[in-house]
Amino acid sequence: MRVQGKDYQSIWFEADTLSVKCIDQTRLPHEFSILTLNDLAATRVAITSMQVRGAPLIGVAAAYGMYLALREAPDCYESARATLLATRPTAVNLLWALQQMDSRCAGLSGEELVQKALSTAQKLAQDDVRICASIGDAGADVLEALWQVKPGKGPLNVLTHCNAGWLATVDWGTALSVIYKASARGVPIHVWVDETRPRNQGAALTCWELSEHGIANTLIVDNAGGHLMQHGEVDVCVVGSDRTTADGDVCNKVGTYLKALAAFDNHIPFYAAVPVSTIDFSMSNGIDEIPIELRSMREVTHVTGINEQGVLTDVQISHKDVTAHNIGFDVTPARLVTGIITEKGVFRANRESLQALNTTD
Amino acid sequence: MRVQGKDYQSIWFEADTLSVKCIDQTRLPHEFSILTLNDLAATRVAITSMQVRGAPLIGVAAAYGMYLALREAPDCYESARATLLATRPTAVNLLWALQQMDSRCAGLSGEELVQKALSTAQKLAQDDVRICASIGDAGADVLEALWQVKPGKGPLNVLTHCNAGWLATVDWGTALSVIYKASARGVPIHVWVDETRPRNQGAALTCWELSEHGIANTLIVDNAGGHLMQHGEVDVCVVGSDRTTADGDVCNKVGTYLKALAAFDNHIPFYAAVPVSTIDFSMSNGIDEIPIELRSMREVTHVTGINEQGVLTDVQISHKDVTAHNIGFDVTPARLVTGIITEKGVFRANRESLQALNTTD
Repeated sequence: MRVQGKDYQSIWFEADTLSVKCIDQTRLPHEFSILTLNDLAATRVAITSMQVRGAPLIGVAAAYGMYLALREAPDCYESARATLLATRPTAVNLLWALQQMDSRCAGLSGEELVQKALSTAQKLAQDDVRICASIGDAGADVLEALWQVKPGKGPLNVLTHCNAGWLATVDWGTALSVIYKASARGVPIHVWVDETRPRNQGAALTCWELSEHGIANTLIVDNAGGHLMQHGEVDVCVVGSDRTTADGDVCNKVGTYLKALAAFDNHIPFYAAVPVSTIDFSMSNGIDEIPIELRSMREVTHVTGINEQGVLTDVQISHKDVTAHNIGFDVTPARLVTGIITEKGVFRANRESLQALNTTD
Repeated sequence: MRVQGKDYQSIWFEADTLSVKCIDQTRLPHEFSILTLNDLAATRVAITSMQVRGAPLIGVAAAYGMYLALREAPDCYESARATLLATRPTAVNLLWALQQMDSRCAGLSGEELVQKALSTAQKLAQDDVRICASIGDAGADVLEALWQVKPGKGPLNVLTHCNAGWLATVDWGTALSVIYKASARGVPIHVWVDETRPRNQGAALTCWELSEHGIANTLIVDNAGGHLMQHGEVDVCVVGSDRTTADGDVCNKVGTYLKALAAFDNHIPFYAAVPVSTIDFSMSNGIDEIPIELRSMREVTHVTGINEQGVLTDVQISHKDVTAHNIGFDVTPARLVTGIITEKGVFRANRESLQALNTTD
């Protein structure tokens, strides 16, 4: 998508230098900076520190990480795989991408293995772009239909949480792909962007990517969405999901559940936009079964931004001896979800409907 | 309550210097600093900039502001009253305190008026302490009863939002008075503290005052409470309220509604602890009728804390051209509220029950 008027993807292989390039998302929105990954260690750090983040992008980054690891040490497939799998526990794409790698690389060794790892990573990246574009097309039908029946025909007000944009994928995004595609069809859209504490992906990334692409947006604190919904200021919620169960429970950035409750209470449709690869047919009850990442206390006690001199700075918002608890995700029960938007179309959030997508049977 | 082992109130009249002293809450938790108010202008700034904040404290501060204004210009009662009333639009205590001042000062002038204004402010402050202590006693019965039936008898986990502590009143607090009083009775309590964006009163003030008084507490982002409730980590929610309607709708810091929804969805009791003076019997439907304060965009786009050098610093979390929307409060419908804890006892959140408190009929 567009940055300063030019088209970018969030990760790409640079053939000239044989390196993997990605946008350093920890420096956005203050600085647009390109990161070079040349080995497994750098890839591990990039994923763990969230220089690359977003479930689909993590999968692709891990696949490139396998290539970078294998070209250094083709015998270390299993240890490289374990290192990458341990970087983030909630996103199912990570496992899925590594499983794709397993099946395509089985029986290979040496340079053949290295090249297959590279071509697999590139294929996963290309597939992700295609899938995200299709998610956008399917979801744009939903937004267009909502806008058609909106009284007064003002802009359609969409609330989103966290960043499920092109920065979270290779291109297009998931939730934001729906917005980009609907906008391209001429649906006037305004997006309410939850800031998404503790890491402020909404404030830092979603507002930035929407503004760069020319979509009207307004930043709100995570606390504000309920009030806006009570007052008719939100027409639809669209979020991403890191993992969706066979029964349609949606695991997404912590706080999503609270917005789904408010949407339900105010009769506002609530959609999750997800690649089929993030539907985990091995799980039913998301609250009981999905492992939730516990992250550092410091993300809660400190906030990162630029100071008046323009320097990226951490400030502590609490007293110095405070104890904090930092869970990364929550689960929205299927009963609160109007629909699951996928590259194969829009499905109801229940087992009967989603089962059509289960190709593992 | 206790600060560094010594007892404080949040505001007091210093007879030696004829000045009003208060704790500067914009410098907490990093610095414990006492502010001196000597005139109307300083009082207006203190309320508007939230150096003093919290519905009950604002009322007392405004009453002291009337005294400070009248001793400079005893003829300017109406203009001073209008200046103070305009500082914050949502809290009903502000109007209530000024009305108390009106009725006690009617017909007086000159030095007699000035002295009556001072004694009225002091009486409101004393009344507030007594009222808050009684709220705590009434609410402690609720917490004690919940703890008695808690399986396993671990600490009672209380979730609170914003700061309804002694810092928001003259002493004791409202929601936190309930906690201080229950703790004093021997109920082991642990408090989950919502950070409460955009101004982080939970992170900055509630954690600080609970820790100074020796109550176990953990800071969480506003997004986290729903997940904790789904997983049995919250036994009860207790919040304050800036205005409660005759039908029991509770207007409190923005985000309260989302926590009430999650509590209801997980069968967790949800209480508002309020002085009777904040129940507005002229209003029924809080969502339609209570005016909601719109505050500065900068509170959303910037976060205040101390940097690594210990200097209080603002950092910007979004790109520089972002648009933000900043509503200060939301309304929790009575149907989500288990009970209203007051200095007169605990009432159900409906007209029939609350009517017993209506002395204006």
